[in-house]
Amino acid sequence: MNALEKLKLKFENNLHVCIGLDTDVNKIPDFLKKSSNPVFEFNKIVIENTCREVAAYKINFAFYEKDGLKGIENLLKTIELIPQDILIIADAKRGDIGNTSKMYAESVFNYFRCDAVTLHPYMGYDSLEPFLEYEDKLSFILTLTSNKGANDFEKLKLDTGEFLFQIVIKKVKEWNKKKNCGIVFGATNLEELRKNIEVFEDLPVLLPGVGAQGGDLNEIANIFALNNKFDYLVNVSRALIYCDKTENFPLSIKQELSKLNSVIKMALLKQ
Amino acid sequence: MNALEKLKLKFENNLHVCIGLDTDVNKIPDFLKKSSNPVFEFNKIVIENTCREVAAYKINFAFYEKDGLKGIENLLKTIELIPQDILIIADAKRGDIGNTSKMYAESVFNYFRCDAVTLHPYMGYDSLEPFLEYEDKLSFILTLTSNKGANDFEKLKLDTGEFLFQIVIKKVKEWNKKKNCGIVFGATNLEELRKNIEVFEDLPVLLPGVGAQGGDLNEIANIFALNNKFDYLVNVSRALIYCDKTENFPLSIKQELSKLNSVIKMALLKQ
Repeated sequence: MNALEKLKLKFENNLHVCIGLDTDVNKIPDFLKKSSNPVFEFNKIVIENTCREVAAYKINFAFYEKDGLKGIENLLKTIELIPQDILIIADAKRGDIGNTSKMYAESVFNYFRCDAVTLHPYMGYDSLEPFLEYEDKLSFILTLTSNKGANDFEKLKLDTGEFLFQIVIKKVKEWNKKKNCGIVFGATNLEELRKNIEVFEDLPVLLPGVGAQGGDLNEIANIFALNNKFDYLVNVSRALIYCDKTENFPLSIKQELSKLNSVIKMALLKQ
Repeated sequence: MNALEKLKLKFENNLHVCIGLDTDVNKIPDFLKKSSNPVFEFNKIVIENTCREVAAYKINFAFYEKDGLKGIENLLKTIELIPQDILIIADAKRGDIGNTSKMYAESVFNYFRCDAVTLHPYMGYDSLEPFLEYEDKLSFILTLTSNKGANDFEKLKLDTGEFLFQIVIKKVKEWNKKKNCGIVFGATNLEELRKNIEVFEDLPVLLPGVGAQGGDLNEIANIFALNNKFDYLVNVSRALIYCDKTENFPLSIKQELSKLNSVIKMALLKQ
Protein backbone atom coordinates (compact mmCIF):
# COMPACT_ATOMS: atom_id res chain seq x y z
CA MET A 1 0.00 0.00 0.00
CA ASN A 2 1.56 3.29 -0.98
CA ALA A 3 1.41 6.49 1.06
CA LEU A 4 -1.56 8.03 -0.74
CA GLU A 5 -3.57 4.80 -0.50
CA LYS A 6 -2.95 4.64 3.25
CA LEU A 7 -4.25 8.15 3.61
CA LYS A 8 -7.28 7.60 1.40
CA LEU A 9 -8.45 4.70 3.54
CA LYS A 10 -8.34 6.93 6.59
CA PHE A 11 -10.18 9.75 4.81
CA GLU A 12 -12.89 7.29 3.75
CA ASN A 13 -13.34 6.53 7.44
CA ASN A 14 -13.67 10.25 8.23
CA LEU A 15 -10.30 10.31 9.96
CA HIS A 16 -8.39 13.54 9.33
CA VAL A 17 -6.43 14.16 12.52
CA CYS A 18 -2.68 13.87 12.36
CA ILE A 19 -0.91 13.72 15.71
CA GLY A 20 2.37 15.55 15.94
CA LEU A 21 4.92 13.71 18.04
CA ASP A 22 6.81 16.84 19.10
CA THR A 23 7.94 15.11 22.24
CA ASP A 24 9.77 17.32 24.71
CA VAL A 25 10.96 15.63 27.88
CA ASN A 26 10.30 18.84 29.83
CA LYS A 27 6.61 18.79 28.95
CA ILE A 28 5.61 15.17 29.48
CA PRO A 29 3.80 14.02 32.65
CA ASP A 30 6.05 13.93 35.71
CA PHE A 31 5.40 10.27 36.50
CA LEU A 32 7.04 9.31 33.19
CA LYS A 33 10.18 11.33 33.77
CA LYS A 34 11.44 8.65 36.14
CA SER A 35 11.44 6.00 33.42
CA SER A 36 14.74 4.99 31.81
CA ASN A 37 13.64 6.42 28.46
CA PRO A 38 10.87 8.97 29.07
CA VAL A 39 10.53 10.18 25.45
CA PHE A 40 10.05 6.67 24.13
CA GLU A 41 7.68 5.65 26.95
CA PHE A 42 5.61 8.75 26.32
CA ASN A 43 5.41 8.14 22.55
CA LYS A 44 4.46 4.52 23.21
CA ILE A 45 1.50 5.54 25.37
CA VAL A 46 0.42 8.21 22.88
CA ILE A 47 0.53 5.78 19.96
CA GLU A 48 -1.18 2.92 21.82
CA ASN A 49 -4.02 5.18 22.85
CA THR A 50 -4.59 6.97 19.56
CA CYS A 51 -3.67 4.62 16.72
CA ARG A 52 -7.22 3.37 16.18
CA GLU A 53 -8.63 6.82 15.60
CA VAL A 54 -5.82 8.72 13.95
CA ALA A 55 -5.19 9.43 10.26
CA ALA A 56 -1.41 9.95 10.49
CA TYR A 57 1.49 10.69 12.80
CA LYS A 58 3.84 13.56 12.12
CA ILE A 59 7.24 13.19 13.69
CA ASN A 60 8.99 16.46 14.27
CA PHE A 61 12.61 15.53 13.61
CA ALA A 62 14.03 18.55 15.47
CA PHE A 63 12.79 17.21 18.80
CA TYR A 64 14.82 14.03 18.30
CA GLU A 65 17.86 15.50 16.56
CA LYS A 66 18.51 17.78 19.51
CA ASP A 67 19.25 14.65 21.60
CA GLY A 68 21.79 13.35 19.08
CA LEU A 69 22.38 9.60 18.96
CA LYS A 70 19.89 8.92 21.74
CA GLY A 71 17.28 10.98 19.86
CA ILE A 72 17.86 9.13 16.60
CA GLU A 73 17.42 5.83 18.46
CA ASN A 74 14.15 7.10 19.90
CA LEU A 75 13.03 8.20 16.45
CA LEU A 76 13.69 4.72 15.05
CA LYS A 77 12.01 2.95 17.96
CA THR A 78 9.00 5.27 17.78
CA ILE A 79 8.56 4.64 14.06
CA GLU A 80 8.60 0.88 14.73
CA LEU A 81 5.65 1.25 17.08
CA ILE A 82 3.35 2.78 14.49
CA PRO A 83 1.01 0.30 12.78
CA GLN A 84 1.77 -0.23 9.08
CA ASP A 85 -1.56 1.15 7.88
CA ILE A 86 -0.94 4.61 9.36
CA LEU A 87 0.95 7.26 7.44
CA ILE A 88 4.16 8.49 9.06
CA ILE A 89 5.20 12.00 8.09
CA ALA A 90 8.83 12.96 8.62
CA ASP A 91 8.38 16.61 9.53
CA ALA A 92 11.95 17.45 8.64
CA LYS A 93 11.49 20.47 6.32
CA ARG A 94 14.38 19.52 4.09
CA GLY A 95 15.44 20.95 0.71
CA ASP A 96 18.87 21.35 -0.90
CA ILE A 97 20.63 21.03 -4.27
CA GLY A 98 19.86 17.80 -6.11
CA ASN A 99 22.71 15.54 -5.01
CA THR A 100 22.15 16.59 -1.39
CA SER A 101 18.36 16.25 -1.47
CA LYS A 102 18.95 12.74 -2.80
CA MET A 103 20.73 11.92 0.48
CA TYR A 104 17.99 13.51 2.58
CA ALA A 105 15.40 11.47 0.68
CA GLU A 106 17.40 8.31 1.38
CA SER A 107 17.48 9.27 5.04
CA VAL A 108 13.76 9.86 5.56
CA PHE A 109 12.38 7.25 3.15
CA ASN A 110 14.93 4.42 3.32
CA TYR A 111 16.66 4.70 6.66
CA PHE A 112 13.75 5.95 8.77
CA ARG A 113 11.11 4.28 6.56
CA CYS A 114 8.74 7.22 6.74
CA ASP A 115 5.88 7.46 4.23
CA ALA A 116 5.97 11.19 3.75
CA VAL A 117 8.12 14.25 4.30
CA THR A 118 7.74 18.02 4.60
CA LEU A 119 9.88 20.15 2.26
CA HIS A 120 11.00 23.75 1.78
CA PRO A 121 10.20 25.04 -1.73
CA TYR A 122 12.66 27.97 -1.72
CA MET A 123 15.38 26.32 -3.86
CA GLY A 124 12.93 25.22 -6.56
CA TYR A 125 12.18 22.09 -8.54
CA ASP A 126 15.55 20.35 -8.64
CA SER A 127 15.75 20.57 -4.84
CA LEU A 128 12.47 18.61 -4.57
CA GLU A 129 12.90 16.22 -7.49
CA PRO A 130 14.92 13.55 -5.60
CA PHE A 131 12.03 13.23 -3.14
CA LEU A 132 9.41 13.16 -5.91
CA GLU A 133 11.23 10.26 -7.53
CA TYR A 134 9.89 8.08 -4.73
CA GLU A 135 6.55 7.31 -6.38
CA ASP A 136 5.02 5.50 -3.42
CA LYS A 137 5.83 8.24 -0.92
CA LEU A 138 4.27 11.67 -0.33
CA SER A 139 6.05 15.03 -0.29
CA PHE A 140 4.22 17.86 1.48
CA ILE A 141 5.66 21.15 0.27
CA LEU A 142 5.39 24.31 2.38
CA THR A 143 3.12 26.98 0.89
CA LEU A 144 1.55 29.32 3.48
CA THR A 145 2.74 28.41 6.97
CA SER A 146 1.03 28.93 10.33
CA ASN A 147 3.59 31.27 11.91
CA LYS A 148 3.79 35.06 11.99
CA GLY A 149 6.86 35.00 9.75
CA ALA A 150 4.64 33.78 6.90
CA ASN A 151 4.15 37.48 6.19
CA ASP A 152 7.85 38.11 5.56
CA PHE A 153 8.20 36.24 2.26
CA GLU A 154 5.32 33.81 1.65
CA LYS A 155 2.84 36.67 1.43
CA LEU A 156 4.96 38.99 -0.67
CA LYS A 157 3.09 40.18 -3.74
CA LEU A 158 4.58 39.39 -7.11
CA ASP A 159 4.45 41.53 -10.23
CA THR A 160 1.60 39.30 -11.44
CA GLY A 161 -0.52 40.37 -8.46
CA GLU A 162 -0.29 36.94 -6.86
CA PHE A 163 1.31 36.10 -3.54
CA LEU A 164 4.49 34.02 -3.51
CA PHE A 165 2.72 31.12 -1.76
CA GLN A 166 0.13 31.04 -4.55
CA ILE A 167 2.88 30.55 -7.12
CA VAL A 168 4.31 27.76 -5.00
CA ILE A 169 0.91 26.01 -5.02
CA LYS A 170 0.67 26.46 -8.80
CA LYS A 171 4.14 25.02 -9.32
CA VAL A 172 3.51 22.06 -7.02
CA LYS A 173 0.46 21.21 -9.13
CA GLU A 174 2.66 21.23 -12.25
CA TRP A 175 5.26 19.04 -10.53
CA ASN A 176 2.69 16.53 -9.26
CA LYS A 177 3.06 14.20 -12.25
CA LYS A 178 3.32 11.09 -10.10
CA LYS A 179 0.51 12.10 -7.74
CA ASN A 180 2.86 12.09 -4.81
CA CYS A 181 2.82 15.77 -3.86
CA GLY A 182 0.86 17.51 -1.14
CA ILE A 183 1.00 20.97 0.40
CA VAL A 184 1.45 22.35 3.89
CA PHE A 185 -1.05 25.14 4.55
CA GLY A 186 -1.16 26.71 8.02
CA ALA A 187 -4.38 26.20 9.94
CA THR A 188 -4.10 29.75 11.30
CA ASN A 189 -4.85 31.29 7.89
CA LEU A 190 -8.61 30.72 7.59
CA GLU A 191 -9.26 33.65 5.30
CA GLU A 192 -6.51 32.57 2.92
CA LEU A 193 -7.72 28.97 3.11
CA ARG A 194 -11.21 30.04 2.00
CA LYS A 195 -9.80 32.10 -0.85
CA ASN A 196 -7.35 29.47 -2.12
CA ILE A 197 -8.92 26.09 -1.45
CA GLU A 198 -10.42 25.96 -4.94
CA VAL A 199 -7.02 25.90 -6.60
CA PHE A 200 -5.70 23.04 -4.44
CA GLU A 201 -7.58 20.57 -6.67
CA ASP A 202 -6.40 17.04 -5.86
CA LEU A 203 -3.39 18.02 -3.73
CA PRO A 204 -3.63 16.51 -0.24
CA VAL A 205 -3.29 19.23 2.40
CA LEU A 206 -1.48 19.08 5.71
CA LEU A 207 -2.66 21.82 8.07
CA PRO A 208 -0.52 22.42 11.14
CA GLY A 209 -1.35 25.09 13.70
CA VAL A 210 -4.52 23.82 15.40
CA GLY A 211 -4.42 24.19 19.19
CA ALA A 212 -1.29 25.82 20.63
CA GLN A 213 -0.92 28.03 17.56
CA GLY A 214 -4.58 29.04 17.55
CA GLY A 215 -6.04 27.28 14.49
CA ASP A 216 -9.78 26.50 14.70
CA LEU A 217 -10.58 22.88 13.82
CA ASN A 218 -14.32 23.40 13.45
CA GLU A 219 -13.86 26.22 10.95
CA ILE A 220 -11.28 24.25 8.98
CA ALA A 221 -13.47 21.17 8.78
CA ASN A 222 -16.38 23.34 7.63
CA ILE A 223 -14.35 25.02 4.90
CA PHE A 224 -13.16 21.69 3.52
CA ALA A 225 -16.64 20.14 3.71
CA LEU A 226 -18.21 23.15 2.00
CA ASN A 227 -15.71 22.76 -0.82
CA ASN A 228 -16.24 19.01 -1.12
CA LYS A 229 -12.59 18.44 -0.47
CA PHE A 230 -11.83 15.52 1.83
CA ASP A 231 -8.13 14.84 1.39
CA TYR A 232 -6.74 16.87 4.26
CA LEU A 233 -4.91 16.25 7.50
CA VAL A 234 -5.22 18.54 10.47
CA ASN A 235 -2.17 18.29 12.65
CA VAL A 236 -2.46 18.67 16.40
CA SER A 237 0.66 18.41 18.53
CA ARG A 238 1.01 20.21 21.86
CA ALA A 239 -2.74 20.69 22.46
CA LEU A 240 -3.29 16.94 22.33
CA ILE A 241 -0.17 15.20 23.60
CA TYR A 242 0.25 17.52 26.59
CA CYS A 243 -3.46 17.90 27.41
CA ASP A 244 -3.07 16.18 30.79
CA LYS A 245 0.03 15.94 32.96
CA THR A 246 -1.40 13.41 35.45
CA GLU A 247 -1.31 9.62 35.37
CA ASN A 248 -4.68 9.85 33.72
CA PHE A 249 -3.14 11.14 30.50
CA PRO A 250 -3.56 7.95 28.40
CA LEU A 251 -7.33 8.26 28.77
CA SER A 252 -7.24 12.04 28.36
CA ILE A 253 -5.47 11.99 25.00
CA LYS A 254 -7.84 9.27 23.81
CA GLN A 255 -10.82 11.44 24.76
CA GLU A 256 -9.23 14.55 23.29
CA LEU A 257 -8.70 12.77 19.98
CA SER A 258 -12.31 11.53 19.98
CA LYS A 259 -13.46 15.09 20.53
CA LEU A 260 -11.42 16.34 17.58
CA ASN A 261 -12.75 13.53 15.40
CA SER A 262 -16.32 14.41 16.41
CA VAL A 263 -15.83 18.02 15.40
CA ILE A 264 -14.76 16.88 11.95
CA LYS A 265 -17.61 14.37 11.64
CA MET A 266 -20.11 17.07 12.57
CA ALA A 267 -18.80 19.26 9.78
CA LEU A 268 -19.11 16.37 7.33
CA LEU A 269 -22.70 15.64 8.45
CA LYS A 270 -23.76 19.24 8.02
CA GLN A 271 -23.14 18.99 4.29
CA MET B 1 36.70 33.22 20.16
CA ASN B 2 33.27 33.55 18.55
CA ALA B 3 32.40 32.37 15.06
CA LEU B 4 32.88 35.72 13.32
CA GLU B 5 36.25 36.29 15.02
CA LYS B 6 37.46 32.88 13.86
CA LEU B 7 36.51 33.76 10.32
CA LYS B 8 38.05 37.23 10.42
CA LEU B 9 41.43 35.80 11.41
CA LYS B 10 41.34 33.54 8.36
CA PHE B 11 40.29 36.37 6.07
CA GLU B 12 43.17 38.47 7.37
CA ASN B 13 45.46 35.66 6.26
CA ASN B 14 43.88 35.65 2.81
CA LEU B 15 42.16 32.34 3.42
CA HIS B 16 38.70 32.14 1.85
CA VAL B 17 38.28 28.51 0.83
CA CYS B 18 35.72 26.47 2.69
CA ILE B 19 35.95 22.73 2.14
CA GLY B 20 32.67 20.87 1.92
CA LEU B 21 32.80 17.49 3.60
CA ASP B 22 30.10 15.94 1.40
CA THR B 23 31.59 12.54 1.97
CA ASP B 24 30.03 9.76 -0.09
CA VAL B 25 31.47 6.30 0.47
CA ASN B 26 30.90 5.49 -3.22
CA LYS B 27 33.19 8.31 -4.33
CA ILE B 28 36.17 8.00 -2.04
CA PRO B 29 39.44 6.33 -3.17
CA ASP B 30 39.14 2.55 -3.43
CA PHE B 31 42.03 1.84 -1.08
CA LEU B 32 40.07 3.47 1.76
CA LYS B 33 36.93 1.46 1.17
CA LYS B 34 38.50 -1.53 2.91
CA SER B 35 38.95 0.35 6.17
CA SER B 36 36.52 -0.34 9.03
CA ASN B 37 35.09 3.17 8.78
CA PRO B 38 35.86 4.57 5.31
CA VAL B 39 33.90 7.84 5.70
CA PHE B 40 35.70 8.76 8.89
CA GLU B 41 39.13 7.71 7.57
CA PHE B 42 38.57 9.79 4.46
CA ASN B 43 37.50 12.88 6.44
CA LYS B 44 40.51 12.44 8.71
CA ILE B 45 42.91 12.51 5.77
CA VAL B 46 41.13 15.48 4.18
CA ILE B 47 41.23 17.49 7.41
CA GLU B 48 44.84 16.60 8.25
CA ASN B 49 45.98 17.66 4.80
CA THR B 50 44.01 20.87 4.49
CA CYS B 51 43.54 22.35 7.99
CA ARG B 52 46.55 24.68 7.73
CA GLU B 53 45.32 26.37 4.57
CA VAL B 54 41.56 26.35 4.90
CA ALA B 55 39.20 29.06 6.12
CA ALA B 56 36.32 26.79 7.16
CA TYR B 57 34.79 23.34 6.81
CA LYS B 58 31.19 22.91 5.74
CA ILE B 59 29.67 19.63 6.79
CA ASN B 60 26.78 18.56 4.62
CA PHE B 61 24.47 16.91 7.15
CA ALA B 62 22.51 14.97 4.52
CA PHE B 63 25.53 12.80 3.70
CA TYR B 64 25.71 11.66 7.33
CA GLU B 65 22.00 11.50 8.12
CA LYS B 66 21.45 9.01 5.33
CA ASP B 67 23.58 6.50 7.30
CA GLY B 68 21.48 6.96 10.43
CA LEU B 69 23.16 6.25 13.76
CA LYS B 70 26.47 5.35 12.13
CA GLY B 71 26.36 8.60 10.16
CA ILE B 72 25.66 10.70 13.25
CA GLU B 73 28.61 9.03 14.97
CA ASN B 74 30.82 9.90 11.99
CA LEU B 75 29.56 13.46 12.07
CA LEU B 76 30.50 13.78 15.75
CA LYS B 77 33.89 12.17 15.27
CA THR B 78 34.63 14.33 12.22
CA ILE B 79 33.78 17.52 14.10
CA GLU B 80 36.16 16.49 16.89
CA LEU B 81 39.03 16.32 14.38
CA ILE B 82 38.70 19.93 13.27
CA PRO B 83 41.08 22.34 15.02
CA GLN B 84 39.32 24.84 17.31
CA ASP B 85 40.39 27.88 15.31
CA ILE B 86 38.58 26.77 12.15
CA LEU B 87 34.92 27.58 11.58
CA ILE B 88 32.62 24.56 11.25
CA ILE B 89 29.47 25.20 9.24
CA ALA B 90 26.56 22.80 9.74
CA ASP B 91 25.17 22.78 6.20
CA ALA B 92 21.80 21.55 7.37
CA LYS B 93 19.43 24.06 5.71
CA ARG B 94 17.00 24.09 8.60
CA GLY B 95 14.04 26.41 9.27
CA ASP B 96 10.72 25.79 11.03
CA ILE B 97 8.26 27.48 13.41
CA GLY B 98 9.89 29.03 16.48
CA ASN B 99 9.63 26.24 19.03
CA THR B 100 10.92 23.73 16.45
CA SER B 101 13.77 25.92 15.19
CA LYS B 102 14.80 26.23 18.84
CA MET B 103 15.36 22.46 18.88
CA TYR B 104 17.28 22.52 15.57
CA ALA B 105 19.49 25.30 16.95
CA GLU B 106 20.16 23.19 20.05
CA SER B 107 21.07 20.30 17.78
CA VAL B 108 23.61 22.08 15.56
CA PHE B 109 25.06 24.50 18.10
CA ASN B 110 24.95 22.57 21.39
CA TYR B 111 24.94 18.90 20.48
CA PHE B 112 27.15 19.01 17.38
CA ARG B 113 29.04 22.11 18.57
CA CYS B 114 29.15 23.67 15.13
CA ASP B 115 30.00 27.37 14.80
CA ALA B 116 27.59 28.17 12.02
CA VAL B 117 24.54 26.86 10.19
CA THR B 118 22.78 27.31 6.85
CA LEU B 119 19.07 28.26 6.99
CA HIS B 120 16.02 28.44 4.74
CA PRO B 121 14.39 31.90 4.81
CA TYR B 122 10.97 30.84 3.45
CA MET B 123 9.11 30.81 6.80
CA GLY B 124 10.36 34.25 7.80
CA TYR B 125 11.86 35.91 10.84
CA ASP B 126 10.44 33.85 13.69
CA SER B 127 11.74 30.68 12.02
CA LEU B 128 15.30 32.09 12.14
CA GLU B 129 15.15 33.92 15.46
CA PRO B 130 16.03 30.91 17.69
CA PHE B 131 19.28 30.53 15.72
CA LEU B 132 20.03 34.26 15.84
CA GLU B 133 19.73 34.18 19.61
CA TYR B 134 23.10 32.42 19.66
CA GLU B 135 25.21 35.57 19.60
CA ASP B 136 28.56 33.81 19.22
CA LYS B 137 27.44 31.65 16.27
CA LEU B 138 26.83 32.50 12.62
CA SER B 139 23.66 31.87 10.62
CA PHE B 140 24.06 31.83 6.83
CA ILE B 141 20.65 32.38 5.26
CA LEU B 142 19.90 31.22 1.72
CA THR B 143 19.37 34.05 -0.77
CA LEU B 144 20.21 33.15 -4.39
CA THR B 145 21.33 29.53 -4.61
CA SER B 146 23.63 27.86 -7.12
CA ASN B 147 21.14 25.40 -8.63
CA LYS B 148 18.85 25.72 -11.65
CA GLY B 149 15.79 25.74 -9.41
CA ALA B 150 16.89 29.16 -8.15
CA ASN B 151 14.82 30.48 -11.06
CA ASP B 152 11.58 28.95 -9.79
CA PHE B 153 11.03 31.19 -6.76
CA GLU B 154 14.21 33.02 -5.72
CA LYS B 155 14.24 34.98 -8.97
CA LEU B 156 10.54 35.77 -9.09
CA LYS B 157 9.91 39.46 -9.56
CA LEU B 158 7.90 41.25 -6.90
CA ASP B 159 5.49 44.12 -7.39
CA THR B 160 8.28 46.44 -6.25
CA GLY B 161 10.39 45.38 -9.23
CA GLU B 162 12.87 43.52 -7.02
CA PHE B 163 13.59 39.81 -7.06
CA LEU B 164 12.55 37.72 -4.07
CA PHE B 165 16.20 36.95 -3.19
CA GLN B 166 16.91 40.68 -3.03
CA ILE B 167 14.18 41.15 -0.44
CA VAL B 168 15.65 38.25 1.54
CA ILE B 169 19.04 40.01 1.56
CA LYS B 170 17.40 43.25 2.65
CA LYS B 171 15.56 41.50 5.49
CA VAL B 172 18.66 39.64 6.67
CA LYS B 173 20.43 43.00 6.97
CA GLU B 174 17.57 44.25 9.16
CA TRP B 175 17.71 41.10 11.28
CA ASN B 176 21.47 41.24 11.74
CA LYS B 177 21.31 43.18 15.02
CA LYS B 178 23.80 40.90 16.76
CA LYS B 179 26.20 40.74 13.80
CA ASN B 180 25.75 37.00 13.55
CA CYS B 181 24.06 36.69 10.16
CA GLY B 182 25.56 35.83 6.81
CA ILE B 183 24.11 34.93 3.44
CA VAL B 184 24.45 32.02 1.04
CA PHE B 185 24.87 33.26 -2.53
CA GLY B 186 25.48 30.69 -5.27
CA ALA B 187 28.87 30.92 -7.01
CA THR B 188 27.20 30.10 -10.32
CA ASN B 189 25.42 33.50 -10.47
CA LEU B 190 28.29 35.82 -11.43
CA GLU B 191 26.12 38.39 -13.13
CA GLU B 192 23.82 38.62 -10.12
CA LEU B 193 26.81 38.71 -7.79
CA ARG B 194 28.21 41.74 -9.62
CA LYS B 195 24.85 43.49 -9.53
CA ASN B 196 24.10 42.81 -5.88
CA ILE B 197 27.43 42.74 -4.05
CA GLU B 198 27.13 46.40 -3.11
CA VAL B 199 24.08 45.80 -0.98
CA PHE B 200 25.66 42.93 0.99
CA GLU B 201 27.50 45.52 3.13
CA ASP B 202 29.02 43.75 6.16
CA LEU B 203 27.22 40.43 5.73
CA PRO B 204 29.70 37.55 5.38
CA VAL B 205 28.97 35.55 2.23
CA LEU B 206 29.14 31.82 1.73
CA LEU B 207 29.38 30.92 -1.96
CA PRO B 208 28.79 27.27 -2.85
CA GLY B 209 28.91 26.01 -6.40
CA VAL B 210 32.57 26.29 -7.40
CA GLY B 211 33.86 23.22 -9.23
CA ALA B 212 31.30 20.45 -9.85
CA GLN B 213 28.50 23.00 -10.21
CA GLY B 214 30.50 25.25 -12.55
CA GLY B 215 31.29 28.33 -10.46
CA ASP B 216 34.48 30.18 -11.47
CA LEU B 217 36.75 30.92 -8.49
CA ASN B 218 38.94 33.41 -10.31
CA GLU B 219 35.97 35.53 -11.35
CA ILE B 220 34.46 35.41 -7.88
CA ALA B 221 37.69 36.45 -6.20
CA ASN B 222 38.03 39.32 -8.69
CA ILE B 223 34.51 40.57 -8.08
CA PHE B 224 35.02 40.61 -4.31
CA ALA B 225 38.45 42.25 -4.58
CA LEU B 226 37.11 44.90 -6.94
CA ASN B 227 34.40 45.70 -4.43
CA ASN B 228 36.81 45.79 -1.50
CA LYS B 229 34.83 43.10 0.22
CA PHE B 230 36.91 40.44 1.93
CA ASP B 231 34.50 38.61 4.22
CA TYR B 232 33.53 35.73 1.95
CA LEU B 233 33.93 31.98 1.86
CA VAL B 234 34.06 30.04 -1.37
CA ASN B 235 32.96 26.49 -0.79
CA VAL B 236 34.48 23.67 -2.79
CA SER B 237 33.31 20.13 -2.18
CA ARG B 238 33.42 17.46 -4.87
CA ALA B 239 36.04 19.18 -7.07
CA LEU B 240 38.51 19.12 -4.21
CA ILE B 241 37.84 16.11 -2.02
CA TYR B 242 37.46 13.71 -4.97
CA CYS B 243 40.19 15.21 -7.15
CA ASP B 244 42.30 12.04 -6.99
CA LYS B 245 41.13 8.47 -6.42
CA THR B 246 44.59 6.96 -5.98
CA GLU B 247 46.68 6.50 -2.84
CA ASN B 248 48.25 9.80 -3.74
CA PHE B 249 45.11 11.68 -2.82
CA PRO B 250 46.36 13.25 0.47
CA LEU B 251 49.01 15.14 -1.50
CA SER B 252 46.61 15.89 -4.35
CA ILE B 253 44.01 17.60 -2.18
CA LYS B 254 46.74 19.58 -0.47
CA GLN B 255 48.00 20.78 -3.86
CA GLU B 256 44.49 21.46 -5.11
CA LEU B 257 43.77 23.62 -2.06
CA SER B 258 47.03 25.52 -2.56
CA LYS B 259 46.04 26.17 -6.16
CA LEU B 260 42.67 27.55 -5.10
CA ASN B 261 44.31 29.73 -2.47
CA SER B 262 46.74 31.07 -5.08
CA VAL B 263 43.91 32.04 -7.39
CA ILE B 264 42.38 34.09 -4.58
CA LYS B 265 45.71 35.66 -3.59
CA MET B 266 46.32 36.69 -7.21
CA ALA B 267 42.98 38.46 -7.28
CA LEU B 268 43.84 40.27 -4.05
CA LEU B 269 47.27 41.32 -5.39
CA LYS B 270 45.77 42.72 -8.57
CA GLN B 271 43.91 45.33 -6.56
